[in-house]
Formats: sequence, C-alpha cells, structure tokens
Amino acid sequence: MPDLHFTLSQILAQEKPFRRNLINCLSGFKSLNVCSTISPSGHTNLALLNSVIHVGANPPLMGMLMRPHTVPRHTIENIEAMGVYTLNMVSQAIYQEAHQASARYPQEVSEFEATGLSPWYSNSLKAPYVAESPVKIGLRFEEKHLIAANDTQLIVGKIEELFLPEAALGEDGFLNLSQLGAVAGNGLDGYHLGQPLTRLSYAKPDQTIDEIPFDQSNRRE
Amino acid sequence: MPDLHFTLSQILAQEKPFRRNLINCLSGFKSLNVCSTISPSGHTNLALLNSVIHVGANPPLMGMLMRPHTVPRHTIENIEAMGVYTLNMVSQAIYQEAHQASARYPQEVSEFEATGLSPWYSNSLKAPYVAESPVKIGLRFEEKHLIAANDTQLIVGKIEELFLPEAALGEDGFLNLSQLGAVAGNGLDGYHLGQPLTRLSYAKPDQTIDEIPFDQSNRRE
Repeated sequence: MPDLHFTLSQILAQEKPFRRNLINCLSGFKSLNVCSTISPSGHTNLALLNSVIHVGANPPLMGMLMRPHTVPRHTIENIEAMGVYTLNMVSQAIYQEAHQASARYPQEVSEFEATGLSPWYSNSLKAPYVAESPVKIGLRFEEKHLIAANDTQLIVGKIEELFLPEAALGEDGFLNLSQLGAVAGNGLDGYHLGQPLTRLSYAKPDQTIDEIPFDQSNRRE
Repeated sequence: MPDLHFTLSQILAQEKPFRRNLINCLSGFKSLNVCSTISPSGHTNLALLNSVIHVGANPPLMGMLMRPHTVPRHTIENIEAMGVYTLNMVSQAIYQEAHQASARYPQEVSEFEATGLSPWYSNSLKAPYVAESPVKIGLRFEEKHLIAANDTQLIVGKIEELFLPEAALGEDGFLNLSQLGAVAGNGLDGYHLGQPLTRLSYAKPDQTIDEIPFDQSNRRE
C-alpha cells in the first residue's frame, strides 16, 4: 500500500508551490509540444504546452488545454484571429529552448528570437513551424470549450498537414518516439527521454497479448 | 528538414490502421492511467486511458478524453451514475495488465477479474482503486464537454483524495515519475519507461535556466 494519503482539504492546505508541483505530476508523463502562432500584424509567438492530447484520427484532431489568463494568452488570441497554428514536438535537442519559451515575454518579443528557435513556413499554412522540431503539425482551429471549474480552455484543431522524418515511421504508421528523441514532461519542470519497453498486440478478451519489437509492424488487430 | 509531408487529404487517403497509428503517435508521449469505476449494482470496471491531463491545481482538477461509443462506455455510465471514479498510474509492474484492460469485455465481466489487477477501497470513496498502482487518485465528477467534431467527451473531475509512496515525493511537491516506474504511451500500443534528463529552473525573460538534479528541490521561482 502507498504510505501517504492526502485528502482534498489537506491538498488545499499545502503551500502553493508544493501543491502546484504535486498536482502537476499526478497525471503521469506529459507530451511536450511548442505551439507556434502568428498575429494578424505578423508577430510570431511560441508557447510550451504539456497538455496536448489526441482527439481523433478520422478526421485527424488534436486538443490542447490552455490557461487564458496566464502565459499563452497571445497564443489563443492568434489562433482565433488567424484560424491556424502549429504544434512542434519537443526533442532532446530543443527542450531547454522550449522551456525558455515558457517565460512571460511581452507580446512584442517573439519567443523565436528570445529562445534561438527558428521559424519555418510551409507553402500552405500561414503560421510558422519550429524548424528544429522533428515532427511539425499544422492545424486549423475547430472548436473551443471553457472548463467552468477553473476558466481553462480546451482548444481543438484539425490537422491540415504534417512533416516528419521518414526513418522514424513504420509501415504500419507507428512513429517511434524514442528514435525521434522526443522528451516527456514530469510535472512543471522535469524532463525525461523515453526508454522503450515494447509494443503490445491488440487486446481481446480471452486472448494473450504478444510483445512486438519496436522495429516490426503490428499486424494483429 | 523532415523528409515526409502529409496533407489532410493524404492522411485521409491512408488505410485506417496506418492513419490510426500515425495520428495517435503525433502528440508525443502519453500519460497512462487506469480509470476504475463501479456501477450502482456493484459491477466494477477498468479502462486504460492515454489522454488524462492536468487541468488545475487549485482546486485540483484532472481531465480525460473518452470515446463514448467505443471502449470506455461503461466507464462514463458509471461515473455519471455514481459521481466518483479513480485514476491509477500505470507502472512497469502492471502495464501488460493495463493493456489487457483495453479489450472489449461485456459489462458483466469485471476487468479486475479478467486482468488479475486487485480492487482496493479507501474509507471514503465508493469507487475502487487498483491496489497495484503506485499513485491512486480519487475524483468526483465535475463537468463534461462534448467535442462536436467527433463526439468524444472531455470529463473533468476534482481530486477528493490521493495515495502515493512517500519515497518518490520531494519536499517541493515534485513526484519523481521514473522512480515510480511510471510508463509512457507511444501511440496505441507502444510503452516506454522514463529516462531522466534534468529538471529546469523557472523560466524568466533574460535569465538563464539552471539544471536541477531530480533529487533536489526547485526553490527558484
């Protein structure tokens, strides 16, 4: 049995930094992406996000949770004004720059200049990508939902295009995140690489699960 | 530059398994939690979730995305009927059992029996926890949002209580996920352990970032 027990009132009685760290760690490892946007007047903006989630594959949809009244305010404004934005995977090569992008810069300062990350534009999307990111996803704003309990917003977008390294993509569509050097978040400030265990075959009742090496396709569904 | 480019129409033209795998991998590493519920008549249910996100620390809120028309239907029904549910961190010791919980069992079959995971009840919450999980979170249903684009649902709950191992908790509230053996998801069927890089100090404009060892507190804010 675990040896510490916190009730809601005990959580609320903690000092703010302790509570923030603890609650931010509870969900487990977090995806890390840099959201890149541009304002109608051409100011670019980056925000480090640790709450990007898969929403659906057909149509291809991604979601992300944001606090409108704190850091990524410019991000939401730009997304609503321009209709498009990009998500760029955080890899080992850029996680320190991505972390720096979470500082509260004034709107006139582009986090591209502040962090040293490089903007890159495709032929079809108005928002910039992060050139150094191994996986670049261009999205069109689809819908948003206000979480009444604390005024955060879930933004959902549809994938318009994506760029990724062929070497990391299996013939069954599996993208090897360790091979890409993808970084996982731990709470607000912890960073980890992935150390592969295995892939597992599709689970069915009364059937044992097979282990599938990462370099093989999973054809059993 | 990455060497593969997919447009939306090229994504939609792929075969379904390829598209599902690819789009599910794009967000990066995923948190893995087993959601445990109980029906009014006492049937317990487990569902493996890879889309649990932090929503807020004060009040402590967590969100999770679910497809009401596919696997975790019983989960949503039980949450709405009982008002409470638990999230249980997937560790290396139980990730194969957690994967098996994603099979489509009929409602009368408890995934506890089917997977060999053990139900455990606290003194105050009606829903069962997964005894083998290192971090156990008891939640009360708060609100839900229907994602119109594909009929998925975001469920938000408030933390009522939690259980965790004291040894993994730092004095600043940081919970070391690698030390807990937490597992990160890669797409639908890939599993990784975390390999610690470092913690980074709070980012501020015009200030360099410090690396903080995982066994030290981050006191610079």
